Amino acid sequence: MTSPPTGAAPTLPDIGAIRAAHARIAPYVQRTPVLTCASLDEMVGARLFFKCENFQKVGAFKARGACNAVFSLTDVAAARGVVTHSSGNHGAALAYAAQRRGIPAFVVMPENAAKIKQANVAHFGATIRFCAPTQAAREQACADVLRETGATLIHPYDDERVIAGQGTAALELLDAVPDLDAIMAPVGGGGLLSGTAIAASALRPGIAIYGAEPAGADDAARGFVSGKVEPLPHPDTIADGLRATLSERTLFAIRRHAAAIPTASDAAIARAMRLTWERMKIIIEPSSAVPLACLLEGFVPVGGKRVGVIVSGGNVDLDHLPWQ
Amino acid sequence: MTSPPTGAAPTLPDIGAIRAAHARIAPYVQRTPVLTCASLDEMVGARLFFKCENFQKVGAFKARGACNAVFSLTDVAAARGVVTHSSGNHGAALAYAAQRRGIPAFVVMPENAAKIKQANVAHFGATIRFCAPTQAAREQACADVLRETGATLIHPYDDERVIAGQGTAALELLDAVPDLDAIMAPVGGGGLLSGTAIAASALRPGIAIYGAEPAGADDAARGFVSGKVEPLPHPDTIADGLRATLSERTLFAIRRHAAAIPTASDAAIARAMRLTWERMKIIIEPSSAVPLACLLEGFVPVGGKRVGVIVSGGNVDLDHLPWQ
Repeated sequence: MTSPPTGAAPTLPDIGAIRAAHARIAPYVQRTPVLTCASLDEMVGARLFFKCENFQKVGAFKARGACNAVFSLTDVAAARGVVTHSSGNHGAALAYAAQRRGIPAFVVMPENAAKIKQANVAHFGATIRFCAPTQAAREQACADVLRETGATLIHPYDDERVIAGQGTAALELLDAVPDLDAIMAPVGGGGLLSGTAIAASALRPGIAIYGAEPAGADDAARGFVSGKVEPLPHPDTIADGLRATLSERTLFAIRRHAAAIPTASDAAIARAMRLTWERMKIIIEPSSAVPLACLLEGFVPVGGKRVGVIVSGGNVDLDHLPWQ
Repeated sequence: MTSPPTGAAPTLPDIGAIRAAHARIAPYVQRTPVLTCASLDEMVGARLFFKCENFQKVGAFKARGACNAVFSLTDVAAARGVVTHSSGNHGAALAYAAQRRGIPAFVVMPENAAKIKQANVAHFGATIRFCAPTQAAREQACADVLRETGATLIHPYDDERVIAGQGTAALELLDAVPDLDAIMAPVGGGGLLSGTAIAASALRPGIAIYGAEPAGADDAARGFVSGKVEPLPHPDTIADGLRATLSERTLFAIRRHAAAIPTASDAAIARAMRLTWERMKIIIEPSSAVPLACLLEGFVPVGGKRVGVIVSGGNVDLDHLPWQ
């Protein structure tokens, strides 16, 4: 599940794999609604179609990729369980998927993960292993579990099965609204944007595909330009789901298909999040507000166009809101 | 538009009037979705169907009654405008309806009304007249406008046209989920519960109809038992949309059709509101959480049943949440 060395083209799912994922996970995930909002349309100057993955199982699109990975395993491999490291939503999603399949899940989480995300993981019966909030500590803790249990590592995004699962949200969005001119998704590690890009470019050739990234964790925007994975030593943003770094695999998919990766400040993200709560009456997490933030800032050339937006999740700690 | 003296049976809309209202207002209101939530079902021990009027125009069911009243007026009467007193949602709804018809609206509001509700009214081009937060001051301010302009008073709930409009939410809910065993709505002045009760009892004879009221503003629960309007000198609840007192008309409708009016404490209301935000990822205002609060407290005998819940609105001041 690790990236191949630079130079070899990474393997990626195609639209057939995304369609297969859609059929595989259908019993375990929601077909989420697509909502519109006249007042946000007016503010942006475009027609927006929000694919509401905040209403998804475990409160985030991550249920799609995790279910596809878990239900792709052979019975023998599945019986030994699955393991991942995750700031939260992927961890909860993997716990959910494993519970549905009746197999063990081990989730490595940083000690400072939001409480609601810890509770989500525990709720689905997974075993949590806490570690220091560094990449090295996470990988070590994962390696320990792998050695002890023989479980299968399901990486949060650097995994073909996961990317195929995440692409099913765009598949459903384009089924509901076929004539989109553009589609946007937030980008952290790039699993959602990769899946979205592969699905959308296959289903609607010529559609404009945009990532949207916090300015304080803009490794994808940098890598999109430089062509290299660009790890940031200290990503700093309220969009806690988007602090991860692209892999060679997701960078490759995104550079192949995306038109641009605009970035938004934390202040713009908080404004867009609050505006969504006030106008659409839906709870979205900061990460989900990044595409709208970029649209409101005028960073995306979609005036008068029809734009699909993947709303990635709704897991928010209600005791710590960005405007408090 | 005032209640007849006690003794005469007040006039009320019938299911035909509610169906006519539905056709009349269809171009101006949303057909809101019905959402379900497996984890809330599990906590309550019943199957719940939430009719999401928080997604309605102006963020509350009040758009239904106001549109029905405004679009029922003759052209001559309409041209002189409409006036109301309202803590907010009905005021915004009347402003919206008047704007859609292109006529003036005057809204009398208490000085302490939530800012988001003031902004909603102003947004739709109505003229706001502020008054002291007492019933007497509101009525005097309304009378002044009536004298000056010849506008038509559209009472927030003591009005057949308004009650017929509010009943269209239950009409749509029972169209979407015909086999409900029970239906619940919050009760303040009783317009929504009256309309809900008239629609539900006609469409599904034998359905159990429940109001749900804050314990700190329980005039409907008291009046339901005593048979008299029971004004409370100092209603005190976080459910700011439910501080009004039943009229003879709404009391009559509710006593005819409802099975009971359970009440919930502000603490239980705040818990139910927060739980809805966390589990359903939708923004609801405190008033909307009162039915779920009563269900979670075990005050409604619906174990194993299919229960429709009218979610009345989603206008919340995000700077003043009940758990802060």
